[in-house]
Amino acid sequence: MIVRDIKFKDLDAVYNLLNQLKFVFTHQVDKRKAWDEFNGEGLVVEHQDKIIGFGSLVVENKLRGYKSGQLEDIVIHQDWRGKGVGELLVKKLTERADELGCYRVSLFCREELIPFYNKNGFDVNNVVMKRFKK
Amino acid sequence: MIVRDIKFKDLDAVYNLLNQLKFVFTHQVDKRKAWDEFNGEGLVVEHQDKIIGFGSLVVENKLRGYKSGQLEDIVIHQDWRGKGVGELLVKKLTERADELGCYRVSLFCREELIPFYNKNGFDVNNVVMKRFKK
Repeated sequence: MIVRDIKFKDLDAVYNLLNQLKFVFTHQVDKRKAWDEFNGEGLVVEHQDKIIGFGSLVVENKLRGYKSGQLEDIVIHQDWRGKGVGELLVKKLTERADELGCYRVSLFCREELIPFYNKNGFDVNNVVMKRFKK
Repeated sequence: MIVRDIKFKDLDAVYNLLNQLKFVFTHQVDKRKAWDEFNGEGLVVEHQDKIIGFGSLVVENKLRGYKSGQLEDIVIHQDWRGKGVGELLVKKLTERADELGCYRVSLFCREELIPFYNKNGFDVNNVVMKRFKK
């Protein structure tokens, strides 16, 4: 099992995986445009030539010169959950954040995932609020 | 009172304002570099040639081609709180997110700010977890 940077050729597999997190119709997505505009650091978990995990890190360059990171769209294939794959992926994403100089990494999650992220060095800090476009 | 895009010349005033949110030593910050690398949309509230509010919007271009926005570093000068300045600023930032095509806007906040953001169209959604660099 390896964790590596996503490549353009992984997109279909990753789209399928992301549909296990949140379903989106992707057959009309301009993949080349989406790839060129994507502003995250995307990592995939590959096992025997199959993509079984994906997650991304978004780096914000703050106005006062420092950087902060945010984990987004962490998903492990449903057949591979509970086997340490997510832990490996989160470890690699936070290492990447460290390498890029982020002073902290944040993420949003549902309450039932708190123990998982606690184990991986994250603590609850504030609430997330969202406003959806009307 | 107007809300407009931040300019380089506003940096000192905005740094002072941000220190009311979280104190950071900024005298050694390379302002030109920080400005060039800043990857948010920064808005200031100006009143009689003084900067009394700041906030930024970070746009994430997702791998599946859509965009999501996040509000960061919203601060109103302490002498100007409770006068509707924050509401105006949040309104302009969410309008900017709409213009840029974000399907949603998220933010982190302390629990005591939930009523303020509720009034402005935001609802609590999940928890935030953070991991600080060791």
